[in-house]
Amino acid sequence: MFSFTRTSFELTNKPFLKKSYTIEAINTFLQGELIGTTTNLIKGPEQLKAAQENHITFIGSSKYLKQWETSKASAAIINDNLTVETGDNRALIKVKNADLAMAKVLELFNPAPPVFDTQIHPTAVIHETATLGKDCKIGAHCYIGKDVQLGDGVVLYPNVCVFDETTIGNHTTVWSGTVIRERCIIGSHCIFHTNVSIGADGFGYRPSDDGRGLVKIPQIGHVIIGHYVEIGANSCVDRAKFSATIIGDGCKIDNLVQIAHNSVMGRFCIMAGHSGLAGSVTLGDGVIIGGSASIKDHTTIHSGATIGAGSGVVGDVEAGKTVLGYPAQDARDMLKQWVVMRKLAKQQS
Amino acid sequence: MFSFTRTSFELTNKPFLKKSYTIEAINTFLQGELIGTTTNLIKGPEQLKAAQENHITFIGSSKYLKQWETSKASAAIINDNLTVETGDNRALIKVKNADLAMAKVLELFNPAPPVFDTQIHPTAVIHETATLGKDCKIGAHCYIGKDVQLGDGVVLYPNVCVFDETTIGNHTTVWSGTVIRERCIIGSHCIFHTNVSIGADGFGYRPSDDGRGLVKIPQIGHVIIGHYVEIGANSCVDRAKFSATIIGDGCKIDNLVQIAHNSVMGRFCIMAGHSGLAGSVTLGDGVIIGGSASIKDHTTIHSGATIGAGSGVVGDVEAGKTVLGYPAQDARDMLKQWVVMRKLAKQQS
Amino acid sequence: MFSFTRTSFELTNKPFLKKSYTIEAINTFLQGELIGTTTNLIKGPEQLKAAQENHITFIGSSKYLKQWETSKASAAIINDNLTVETGDNRALIKVKNADLAMAKVLELFNPAPPVFDTQIHPTAVIHETATLGKDCKIGAHCYIGKDVQLGDGVVLYPNVCVFDETTIGNHTTVWSGTVIRERCIIGSHCIFHTNVSIGADGFGYRPSDDGRGLVKIPQIGHVIIGHYVEIGANSCVDRAKFSATIIGDGCKIDNLVQIAHNSVMGRFCIMAGHSGLAGSVTLGDGVIIGGSASIKDHTTIHSGATIGAGSGVVGDVEAGKTVLGYPAQDARDMLKQWVVMRKLAKQQS
Repeated sequence: MFSFTRTSFELTNKPFLKKSYTIEAINTFLQGELIGTTTNLIKGPEQLKAAQENHITFIGSSKYLKQWETSKASAAIINDNLTVETGDNRALIKVKNADLAMAKVLELFNPAPPVFDTQIHPTAVIHETATLGKDCKIGAHCYIGKDVQLGDGVVLYPNVCVFDETTIGNHTTVWSGTVIRERCIIGSHCIFHTNVSIGADGFGYRPSDDGRGLVKIPQIGHVIIGHYVEIGANSCVDRAKFSATIIGDGCKIDNLVQIAHNSVMGRFCIMAGHSGLAGSVTLGDGVIIGGSASIKDHTTIHSGATIGAGSGVVGDVEAGKTVLGYPAQDARDMLKQWVVMRKLAKQQS
Repeated sequence: MFSFTRTSFELTNKPFLKKSYTIEAINTFLQGELIGTTTNLIKGPEQLKAAQENHITFIGSSKYLKQWETSKASAAIINDNLTVETGDNRALIKVKNADLAMAKVLELFNPAPPVFDTQIHPTAVIHETATLGKDCKIGAHCYIGKDVQLGDGVVLYPNVCVFDETTIGNHTTVWSGTVIRERCIIGSHCIFHTNVSIGADGFGYRPSDDGRGLVKIPQIGHVIIGHYVEIGANSCVDRAKFSATIIGDGCKIDNLVQIAHNSVMGRFCIMAGHSGLAGSVTLGDGVIIGGSASIKDHTTIHSGATIGAGSGVVGDVEAGKTVLGYPAQDARDMLKQWVVMRKLAKQQS
Repeated sequence: MFSFTRTSFELTNKPFLKKSYTIEAINTFLQGELIGTTTNLIKGPEQLKAAQENHITFIGSSKYLKQWETSKASAAIINDNLTVETGDNRALIKVKNADLAMAKVLELFNPAPPVFDTQIHPTAVIHETATLGKDCKIGAHCYIGKDVQLGDGVVLYPNVCVFDETTIGNHTTVWSGTVIRERCIIGSHCIFHTNVSIGADGFGYRPSDDGRGLVKIPQIGHVIIGHYVEIGANSCVDRAKFSATIIGDGCKIDNLVQIAHNSVMGRFCIMAGHSGLAGSVTLGDGVIIGGSASIKDHTTIHSGATIGAGSGVVGDVEAGKTVLGYPAQDARDMLKQWVVMRKLAKQQS
């Protein structure tokens, strides 16, 4: 039953990337120093070990120099403080930061996004009062509600829902399965990945007057999202109880992240996968929150603070500070504490 | 590229709330004590700092009294043990609990939900054997399978799927992207938010007979959900291996929560964001589970117990007890332990 | 308002299972030892306490022997080292492992999956260049993009999206709400549950050249998923920055799991609910990751290792090792450490 092998994948590992470049063209793009050359056209990036002769790879540390010798890659981007034999019909591009240069090279090979055969698919249901800017693309089975306003160049892939009175700025892209509830304000150049939930009700209840249960508190606020915000697959941003849940310009949010009602994020914050803000959390600008970290409701994380992965933050965090652990404390203290705990455990056992 | 400012949001922060009330009408609704008055109509609630003259705000603690002086709000709901100058053309409504009263005031301003132009959208695919109660609303692109039964006043927003033989009680609302699998029993007055997964297969495998892999155990049970249950965006309730996964009346479940197969929840339990029950967990009534907390499979959390945020519970918890940490223990003990750990770490370093 | 009782569910707890068997037929299927017999046809499995006379139950430990006496079940599967009175018109099937035998019995009662009235629903939007194998079922409102290839017997339930150039192997089933992005390679006999996100962009940014923000790194890679892989509801597998994110044959992934870009999983790995791999994690074969555990980016978990629930793994884990806690260490050491911490806290307070 399980006689298949992983090789089957290699066989079906089709050449998805369609563009090719000479090594000279890539060097011109990167403005690096070209050492050696290769007549092979470069058709894509690949890791050192998996690379074939039409690949470009990168060497960001001396520990990978050895792998270059046996790699089939015709070219590598390499940190300019490293030295290695180029080899026959092979080229190196020396740059200050090979990792960063590799990230830029990806732009050269970036394939086109999925096609739209028609700008507005005939199966999309668009309320007659909705207004669409120029050059919007609306995929199959989308739903656009009453008084929705889309800016220019908005792309909704199939099966997206946008509810009444929501506005979406120019050139924002929304992937399939994502739902944006009513009365939200979304900036321009945002990307919302698949199955994101924007504007679902905040989580709020009050005891019933007879004390025998819980009564839902209406969540009459909305969500405001700035420009250049990216939200990962299956993440959630709840609408405010009243007023607004706000995500500032340039924030980058990973998959499966929870942002509860009335939280306010500054600009260029980063939240990694599975992290979460409980209600009414305030983030300054440039806050970084590691994976699976959680922030208690009504706390403030000031600008430039970093929350280590897996942490539980139960109080305010000063600007620029790095905290770690649960309950989170200064990261250096927490690291020390972990060492001491291990030592004590060994002494006692 | 990033020259935009956050002000752009303020400009587009449209007046979404359409109702207005005199301060006297609001006081009558709350049955509080009106002090002073204002000729300004109240058009919505707002925080003290952001409020404009047509807003009502609230003062739940003495630390906000100072902000009232500079706030532009024409009215505030205030705890009756607090005293502050009312000011010119401004009013205070004294109540026992300003926070709770504010929650009630939201009901006055609650905007209408998104409109349905037709009760049953023509693009919805509804199996000929399905039965719908009176006044159901079925949005665009919904799918309703064989022998599904919907009660009266059920609302399915666009892009909802309900599979064969599932029943949904009266006045339950299901938001877009949510999928309810076959043979589930859903109570009345429930709210399922966007992209919820109800009745996906439980996670169960057995070693294959030849010992060379894992074989899926059929998950032939179903899900039973009581009345007045609310389930947050992107949360999951798995169907039982056999018999049923059960969520009792009045349970409130936040976003991104995992409820695994054969778990049984009593009435009025609360589970905050990112929390989870592993398989066959039993909760009594009124159990509160904090954000990101996880409960080990086959454990029982008795009625009225509270599980602190971020905890990992590995054994049964007595009725009414509060536990915290990982592994979770009595909350006071855990808090003490955290203090001791910090102290020891400081002494040793 | 909350006067309903849980009994209401019992009333609506319809007989969803439609098949029935004699106890002799079940014993033949299990190849156990039949003790006693019953004239009642067996119509389904049930727990000891909830069972009625047409149910078969199981006794996997001596602590449940007492419940057998009062259970209404007509039959039980029982471990062959246990002994109990059979009772009148009741039967026991002795087997080596009652729990495992019960898992097999479920196959006998497994109801048919939801029906498709037509193989390819007319509302599905299928690009003219897509190719479908024999006997595919495509539900209402599905979207299938350019150059997609589906193998034989692929089942897409309603509201599934599969984007350009993706291939899906034979007999793979995809549930509603799931989105598979472009250029992914999916094996055969896989099951993707509801609202899964496959191939969303990896989470990668670089500082902008003017240092004033973050620039998205194109995620030009794809996702390769082996055969017999099951992925739980609302889980996410991101596409690679370049090259591929890979999930090996037979991996079983629970709900709300995050698998970040460029992670590579071997064969038959298990990831429980809410667990996650940060970017570029490598798993060997047969790795088990407990619920809510997280693995730091660029680490390697070697074959046969087990990561305890709730752990945070910050470094490589050797083959076959079990680690626990945050930061994760050898499980026995961590358990000892927890004991020591509690003891020290008690001494100090």
